Amino acid sequence: MLAKEMETYITGGSAVRAMFEEGARLAAKYGRENVYDFSLGNPNIPAPGAVNDAIRAVLDEEESTFVHGYMTNAGYPDVRRAVAEDLNRRFGTDYSEANILMTVGAAGGLNTILRVLLDPEDEVIVFAPYFSEYNFYVRGARGVIRPIPADPETFRPDPEALRKAITPRTKVLLLNNPNNPTGVVYAAETLRAIAAVLTEKSAEIGHPIYILSDEPYRELVYDAVSVPWIPALYPDTVVGYSWSKSLSLPGERIGYLCIPASCADFPVMFDAAVAVSRTLGFVNAPSLIQRAVMRSLGARTDIEAYDRNRQALYKGLTDLGFRCAPPQGAFYLWVQAPDGDDVTFAQKGMEHRILMVRGSGFGCAGYVRLAYCVSHDMILRSLPAFEKLAKEYNLK
Amino acid sequence: MLAKEMETYITGGSAVRAMFEEGARLAAKYGRENVYDFSLGNPNIPAPGAVNDAIRAVLDEEESTFVHGYMTNAGYPDVRRAVAEDLNRRFGTDYSEANILMTVGAAGGLNTILRVLLDPEDEVIVFAPYFSEYNFYVRGARGVIRPIPADPETFRPDPEALRKAITPRTKVLLLNNPNNPTGVVYAAETLRAIAAVLTEKSAEIGHPIYILSDEPYRELVYDAVSVPWIPALYPDTVVGYSWSKSLSLPGERIGYLCIPASCADFPVMFDAAVAVSRTLGFVNAPSLIQRAVMRSLGARTDIEAYDRNRQALYKGLTDLGFRCAPPQGAFYLWVQAPDGDDVTFAQKGMEHRILMVRGSGFGCAGYVRLAYCVSHDMILRSLPAFEKLAKEYNLK
Repeated sequence: MLAKEMETYITGGSAVRAMFEEGARLAAKYGRENVYDFSLGNPNIPAPGAVNDAIRAVLDEEESTFVHGYMTNAGYPDVRRAVAEDLNRRFGTDYSEANILMTVGAAGGLNTILRVLLDPEDEVIVFAPYFSEYNFYVRGARGVIRPIPADPETFRPDPEALRKAITPRTKVLLLNNPNNPTGVVYAAETLRAIAAVLTEKSAEIGHPIYILSDEPYRELVYDAVSVPWIPALYPDTVVGYSWSKSLSLPGERIGYLCIPASCADFPVMFDAAVAVSRTLGFVNAPSLIQRAVMRSLGARTDIEAYDRNRQALYKGLTDLGFRCAPPQGAFYLWVQAPDGDDVTFAQKGMEHRILMVRGSGFGCAGYVRLAYCVSHDMILRSLPAFEKLAKEYNLK
Repeated sequence: MLAKEMETYITGGSAVRAMFEEGARLAAKYGRENVYDFSLGNPNIPAPGAVNDAIRAVLDEEESTFVHGYMTNAGYPDVRRAVAEDLNRRFGTDYSEANILMTVGAAGGLNTILRVLLDPEDEVIVFAPYFSEYNFYVRGARGVIRPIPADPETFRPDPEALRKAITPRTKVLLLNNPNNPTGVVYAAETLRAIAAVLTEKSAEIGHPIYILSDEPYRELVYDAVSVPWIPALYPDTVVGYSWSKSLSLPGERIGYLCIPASCADFPVMFDAAVAVSRTLGFVNAPSLIQRAVMRSLGARTDIEAYDRNRQALYKGLTDLGFRCAPPQGAFYLWVQAPDGDDVTFAQKGMEHRILMVRGSGFGCAGYVRLAYCVSHDMILRSLPAFEKLAKEYNLK
């Protein structure tokens, strides 16, 4: 007698769990060190020491009822101000606490703003491949997700495909930059072309199409690639952020929404987001960790380690003849299934004790995702297994 | 171009904010110590020292990637096991980690389980007065809330009124025990009568009606009153809990759902709740504080201080001729507006610099709620102001 919709939820979850359980079975059978688990985007690099120092300092220096108590639902004003000023320094913006809503991770923020923006049946466009949880977020806000197929050459968004996908019900373009699962970073040029299409089509359909930019991987970029600040290119942009990756705090559920004053419905939109965040049950972002990230805004997780992993895995796999999207950001490698069948490829990988996530889960069959937020040693140990896998496909 | 529904959200929020702002204006004009703010349920008693000690110990003793990382979405298995065992000791139950889902506060848990249980237009019964946020939680889960009017003599639920309110669409009876806003604790006898009605009507309508018991105030009871463990009285009961009040951690957003194996749809219901908690954007309860509450399960906030406040305020107001529901739990006093007009009563209170929340916000006009989680000194200082208010109504 559960809600009928629950059937989908449970089925979706069980695919991930099946993989998890298979991983556990393999680990029990062969030893954990002989299983090459690239399935999870869980940072393996500890949070910078500054974070735990900041937590201790907050406990030592600030009042318990303040640190653990309710604050205004949008978050502590001083924390929001510090986040705004940090953005201002980095992107030349002029935000204040009035633009920053502290959220329960990026996921909490995305759910909140989608609920603010979408009427039932409103459409949200995404470029495939995309983070599969977006399906639930959009459906939870009563909207409809409209994926645009991937460009298999570049895995960059195609502005002309976007133009064709827009309908009078389009309300949001949901981007993820740097991208999970491809590791691609969208360049300013591409984003400017997207902005031009959205400006034109917003005028045509008579209401703004918002960009919602999901940016938990903003600081995880390599080779001096830069990640454009989209609100500078398009006024109706809301940015969702999380410290899950940049400070290795995914379990803490701490992030923010940045709602610039350039958004058409500002400031009502901000007030609505605060109310929705409260009534969806988030209430506020966890308090102690809000205060700790304020003291850790300059800190970063050790990105060098991810970069070393990225280079070793990319070189290792391409040397073996696998084809991958050029990985510029995040900690994912997006690998083509040699014969285009990602289901079989992931299964064959498992026979060699390699765990990879099928691209079909990201709305893009024919590929698999490898998360390289793992020990460097595991990557090196995995290469002989990949070599065997390559041989099965007669690569090179 | 926001979602149309946002109008309600913003209007609801602005009533609370208007009061907040009026309080700030009065404080600026007369000094904070001359404003008697009984409006907010924000614990004024610090968390027991054991909590901050536990946080420090977790940081010192446990791995950073473990403490701040993803765990299974339901929460750390050892934390869930410890919570289950704590319940087993206290209530003679036999729960395990399979029954405990760690949540982002009680609000996160309630939103999750309502989404699991309700199909669109399914009905949720509440006894007025009730926590006004329930309106949003039920609507967010696409259900319809059906309040049963209060019994103005006892403010206890009336099982016969419940029987009449049940329809074939009734899915949930949402209780809050001890009660916000009345401070009343529902006795075992009443709950048994409710269980009998639900058992009978569930059979009649052909599906279980669940009790969802929201119990953040479970440990805040006075005069040795006991709070019955409802799953022992009715099998289809889910309990939502939060450490917001018992450990004074409302900002930390940490609670759990207890889903007993006696629930008709267990264990599918548990799996569905985990998936819904993830996809609504909670993902998991904040990690560090999960580990800290596990080490603080025996600790309690200083309830004596609330009790002292309760007695002083109850005696002070009843001596002046005000009528209050007998306050046995939580930290609220539920006071009748002398002429039945709570809007005017709250306004007149404000003229004497007393901030009270109108009962109409709790679906029960004619009353106001006073939160006595404030300094004892403020209560004593407020009594002369209440005396002037009593004179305006010619009490006694």
